[in-house]
Amino acid sequence: MAIEFIHDSPGITDVPGFRVGATGCDIRNKNGDRLDLALIVADQPCAAAGVFTTNDVKAAPVRYSQTVLLSSRGLVRGVVANSGNANACTSTQGDSDAQKMAELSAKAVGSPHDIFVVCSTGRIGELLPMSKVAAGIATAAARLSNQASEGMRAAEAILTSDTRPKTATARFLWQGKKISVAGFAKGAGMIEPNMATMLAFIATDAVVESAYLKTSLKSAADQSFNCVSVDGDMSTNDTVILLASGVSGVVLNESSEATLKKLFQEAVDRVCFALAEKIVGDGEKITKVVAVEVLGARQRADAEKIARAIGNSLLVKSSWFGEDPNWGRLADAAGYARTGLDEAKLDIYYNDVPAVVAGRPLPENKLRWKEIVKARQFTVRLNLHLGDAKFRLLASDLTDGYVNYNKSE
Amino acid sequence: MAIEFIHDSPGITDVPGFRVGATGCDIRNKNGDRLDLALIVADQPCAAAGVFTTNDVKAAPVRYSQTVLLSSRGLVRGVVANSGNANACTSTQGDSDAQKMAELSAKAVGSPHDIFVVCSTGRIGELLPMSKVAAGIATAAARLSNQASEGMRAAEAILTSDTRPKTATARFLWQGKKISVAGFAKGAGMIEPNMATMLAFIATDAVVESAYLKTSLKSAADQSFNCVSVDGDMSTNDTVILLASGVSGVVLNESSEATLKKLFQEAVDRVCFALAEKIVGDGEKITKVVAVEVLGARQRADAEKIARAIGNSLLVKSSWFGEDPNWGRLADAAGYARTGLDEAKLDIYYNDVPAVVAGRPLPENKLRWKEIVKARQFTVRLNLHLGDAKFRLLASDLTDGYVNYNKSE
Repeated sequence: MAIEFIHDSPGITDVPGFRVGATGCDIRNKNGDRLDLALIVADQPCAAAGVFTTNDVKAAPVRYSQTVLLSSRGLVRGVVANSGNANACTSTQGDSDAQKMAELSAKAVGSPHDIFVVCSTGRIGELLPMSKVAAGIATAAARLSNQASEGMRAAEAILTSDTRPKTATARFLWQGKKISVAGFAKGAGMIEPNMATMLAFIATDAVVESAYLKTSLKSAADQSFNCVSVDGDMSTNDTVILLASGVSGVVLNESSEATLKKLFQEAVDRVCFALAEKIVGDGEKITKVVAVEVLGARQRADAEKIARAIGNSLLVKSSWFGEDPNWGRLADAAGYARTGLDEAKLDIYYNDVPAVVAGRPLPENKLRWKEIVKARQFTVRLNLHLGDAKFRLLASDLTDGYVNYNKSE
Repeated sequence: MAIEFIHDSPGITDVPGFRVGATGCDIRNKNGDRLDLALIVADQPCAAAGVFTTNDVKAAPVRYSQTVLLSSRGLVRGVVANSGNANACTSTQGDSDAQKMAELSAKAVGSPHDIFVVCSTGRIGELLPMSKVAAGIATAAARLSNQASEGMRAAEAILTSDTRPKTATARFLWQGKKISVAGFAKGAGMIEPNMATMLAFIATDAVVESAYLKTSLKSAADQSFNCVSVDGDMSTNDTVILLASGVSGVVLNESSEATLKKLFQEAVDRVCFALAEKIVGDGEKITKVVAVEVLGARQRADAEKIARAIGNSLLVKSSWFGEDPNWGRLADAAGYARTGLDEAKLDIYYNDVPAVVAGRPLPENKLRWKEIVKARQFTVRLNLHLGDAKFRLLASDLTDGYVNYNKSE
């Protein structure tokens, strides 16, 4: 019973019971033909769960979606998402606009009382051009389909500064029935834990109630979206939604067989992890993806603090960009995480080559580190030798291109 | 009774009772003629106090200096400082080398039992070239002088990526006697709170015991060096030392007249603040110095968290570089500080021009913000309207030049 995993799949159209539609309605007001609005619609109201940004400043669609998921007890018809405008810091008008997007979507699919989750991403502080959005929702609804090509258009419609769509599918068989988990995501800037400027939509055809979905999604997100960092900026709009159509007929709940539960969780985990990896790999103008592994911590929170201090250090990230194995900056950042590490016990490795063992530098290995940091992906590993806890963060470098790209919008 | 304040003074040679000497001994091994070693020597053992990096990974000279300040009860002969090599992450050999620097300095001034504070700044993880350092200490000792020109050489000798020396002097009269407080500092990269990669040496000719000096220095540092940020990286070597020669004959202690205590504290505060400001203004490849003021917080710690989240946000700093008044990124960073701010109460100002009032954007002021952010220095002010606490951080922008400068050492 193995999981079949597909990178760069069509995404949600791989999952029976869902249709998607995407269109371009010029939300950025640039007279472009760029796709910027997507609908994900279940054939019938379906179970849903979400995890959201923990930013104090939440965009209107985040507030709206959190509320409707509670009041609908996690039973929704689908998701409406746009790029180009975050509908964040838009005061009460923003709240009305988010609600309006949900209502227009429900009407467009012919069920005005159905509930839609709403997601927006893009610039903060500007009102949505609602007449354009309304037209876009109508067009997207008219295109709803389960064709792979429309799946790819939806994956494209939510992108902002991303350079490519991000999709993944996992499938497995259970007692002769096929269960699918698939999704698509966007990232690029403001990527940090506890979400990042990222949206991810994942669907399955298993029969799962909202509470179980939520537990499953939370667990997967903690090991994936919450373990990546591009620039350390957490957004106002981060949202991950998991929908379950139930059309496979395979029931998942606390009482299900352990093997089934394990397979399902593994499928959700792998889709989330693949999407998170694609988000880091497509971070704004990055050239490196570095796994920061911290081992031997007294507790996981200490290991995480150190990994994030390293992964978010401008000096460390600049040296990765320069392919300079500057382990001194790793030690410095690990130290200012202030977890009480003991320098005399600290080991630092590039991949499997030691740079520091028990606080003592091994400069004789310098040429080997230099070779390792030339690769697009490598691992830096710190062992604190203080306990058994660990954390792994996937981080990017910082480039002159990032700074120039973000100078102005 | 006013304080006379001098920017870009000769520094410590302005203070009676001290001599300084500086030389270049090629610590960076580049056959350059750059100054890289400085001695500050009191005519007699003098009272001293220090504040140091709170990084878990402390450089050998930091560990050494903390220990000798304790064991000597704050009575030292002076300071020996070098640039070009941080003597950090250098294991037990680093400890021996730091101690050796102190011993060589004491011998060089003819008092082998006197105590020296030791400070180093530069690259982490390499052993000091001790024969060069020994020669440098001998040469610097031979040059000891209270001439302004040698003061300026000392201020230059501790620089790393700084582009200019940083000095300041404050003086006041008390009952006909002149009291001086003066110092010099270095900064440039790894500049963040709780010190930064910075060294600062300040001296006075007041008669002050070590404990009072420590209180005075701690208070000044909290309002100056701990309120600046260039890149959010805290170093392994940060050190601020305050020395008191006592030759003015004016005694400062808890029992002194309130006016005298106030004047002295103000002099120390102003010297520290001026040096901290110069550090930010000379941050690596920066083009902007931005005061981030957070008002109306429930407690100072909340205001500080928000100010630091803003001042260290890559997206915010990039937009400052681009002269883009992107207040949405300010709101976003304020939110992810997660202090429980209420977006509906939030005001954001550029200098005195509102961008957001009570959560509502004022796009009609956009041209005025755009004008403000073109200046080299401006203020962003957030009022949370939740209480009376506040914090002010002096931060810099992030430039493509910073990234390229720090790609490799």
